[in-house]
Amino acid sequence: MSKYFSEERSAEVVNARMGDAINPRLKEVMASLVTHLHAFAKDVDLSQEEWDIAIDFLTRTGQICTEERQEFILLSDILGFSMLVDAISNRRPEGATENTVFGPFHVANAPVREFGETISLDGKGEPCLFTGKVLDTDGTPIAGACVDVWSDNSDGYYDVQQPDIQPKWNNRGRFITREDGSYSFVGIKPVSYPIPDDGPVGKLLGALGRHPYRPAHMHFLVTAEGHQTIVTHTFVGDDSYIGDDTVFGVKETLVAPFTKTDGSETSWLSEFDFVMVRA
Amino acid sequence: MSKYFSEERSAEVVNARMGDAINPRLKEVMASLVTHLHAFAKDVDLSQEEWDIAIDFLTRTGQICTEERQEFILLSDILGFSMLVDAISNRRPEGATENTVFGPFHVANAPVREFGETISLDGKGEPCLFTGKVLDTDGTPIAGACVDVWSDNSDGYYDVQQPDIQPKWNNRGRFITREDGSYSFVGIKPVSYPIPDDGPVGKLLGALGRHPYRPAHMHFLVTAEGHQTIVTHTFVGDDSYIGDDTVFGVKETLVAPFTKTDGSETSWLSEFDFVMVRA
Ligand SMILES: [Fe+2]
Ligand SMILES: [Fe+2]
Repeated sequence: MSKYFSEERSAEVVNARMGDAINPRLKEVMASLVTHLHAFAKDVDLSQEEWDIAIDFLTRTGQICTEERQEFILLSDILGFSMLVDAISNRRPEGATENTVFGPFHVANAPVREFGETISLDGKGEPCLFTGKVLDTDGTPIAGACVDVWSDNSDGYYDVQQPDIQPKWNNRGRFITREDGSYSFVGIKPVSYPIPDDGPVGKLLGALGRHPYRPAHMHFLVTAEGHQTIVTHTFVGDDSYIGDDTVFGVKETLVAPFTKTDGSETSWLSEFDFVMVRA
Repeated sequence: MSKYFSEERSAEVVNARMGDAINPRLKEVMASLVTHLHAFAKDVDLSQEEWDIAIDFLTRTGQICTEERQEFILLSDILGFSMLVDAISNRRPEGATENTVFGPFHVANAPVREFGETISLDGKGEPCLFTGKVLDTDGTPIAGACVDVWSDNSDGYYDVQQPDIQPKWNNRGRFITREDGSYSFVGIKPVSYPIPDDGPVGKLLGALGRHPYRPAHMHFLVTAEGHQTIVTHTFVGDDSYIGDDTVFGVKETLVAPFTKTDGSETSWLSEFDFVMVRA
């Protein structure tokens, strides 16, 4: 058998080149990546011109990245790769709250607010009461859990996307569950928004006949001692993008009720319980 | 069947999102890419931390690219992906000269020189006479073919890597075959050299326990009317890297004889015939 490259044995030849003393996990991951990438090129008989386009696309994707913008994460998101990695890392028993993508808009150390307080500091949008309990998988309430929440404003932007607009921490806050595991806060009924689509990934979405929108959702990061952290959203079920989230974040169990109310302070109510798995 | 994302049906869900009216080849290529990338993540149970490392690696790879440096091509090269795409695009009948990677150092419109003239303008290195014929697959000589050649200098650099060093066009030239299909020129016996390894790709090579070297080679771009263009190298067989070219460019049939001579002008002789396939 020749030691040289051949089309037939391409991945084998490349992988045989790795050293014996290297990190075994790196070796495993790279061998699988090479095998799958080569299989892809062979499956489609990838042409030189297509390879040129791919090199150019990847280069532009890297070059548009800044401290504030991560185009490779967007690329991973729209290919369902981010959701897949999240799913692999967070397999949970039936009944436990499912994870979804973290997204780029979380900010650590949001203000800790009182039970029932509002996070809608600009007063815009349709006020909505979010409430429910944080429970163990056996139904036991978890007191002292931290429910960290964030959403876009009524124009579809997170506060970090509009750094010049005050007040700070609009539509963000942390809430600590009571003895009975309950949390409660006022926010707005979130609205759908497009992911940044003025770069290479937006162009790709267009070429694929896809739109850049995410259905309306409230982000939740739920942490409690002795339990696996939940990173998830609750989704507005009647959103027109609910069936085709551009980053594939929607799961059946995360579609939450949003009910019209005639409360004096809030016009919507969304009740949702979080079920945490012991760590 | 749920329309939402699931680990099991991940690639299927993503691919179903593509529009019906899009470019059918783009659809085919992207569907295969998504399928293979998802299979890769599942095969190795890719973790969030590994995904973070990959995003960071791709970003740095894009950001080091300039007009003069193409790190994504290097990445494709060291994964054998460039050679694979070249192989897929250039399947030839037995006996025809095989292709290999083009490399980043070709410059169009090098001086056309006379039969037997030298391309070694700096006078450094071990002079070598390169000669042979350009033939059709049935053995017929091809007159008027253009043999465009380039190699590194005795320090392992192509002239474009040392733009401040004169003379220009050192170790480059174009030669037109005679009536009998023959070409002849004086160059130097090329030397092995490392690909640029001070960036993310060089770090990856290190982590994989691999070196960045290419075995010594002379580049050839052979064109003739009515025939498929040949992009290839001839390799120095006794080079210590001949069995482990970092970009996998070596093929058995491209290892050329380099014979020590006691010619007054050249100390090496390398004879090699090129066999072209009709277009
Ligand atoms: Fe979001
Ligand atoms: Fe080269």
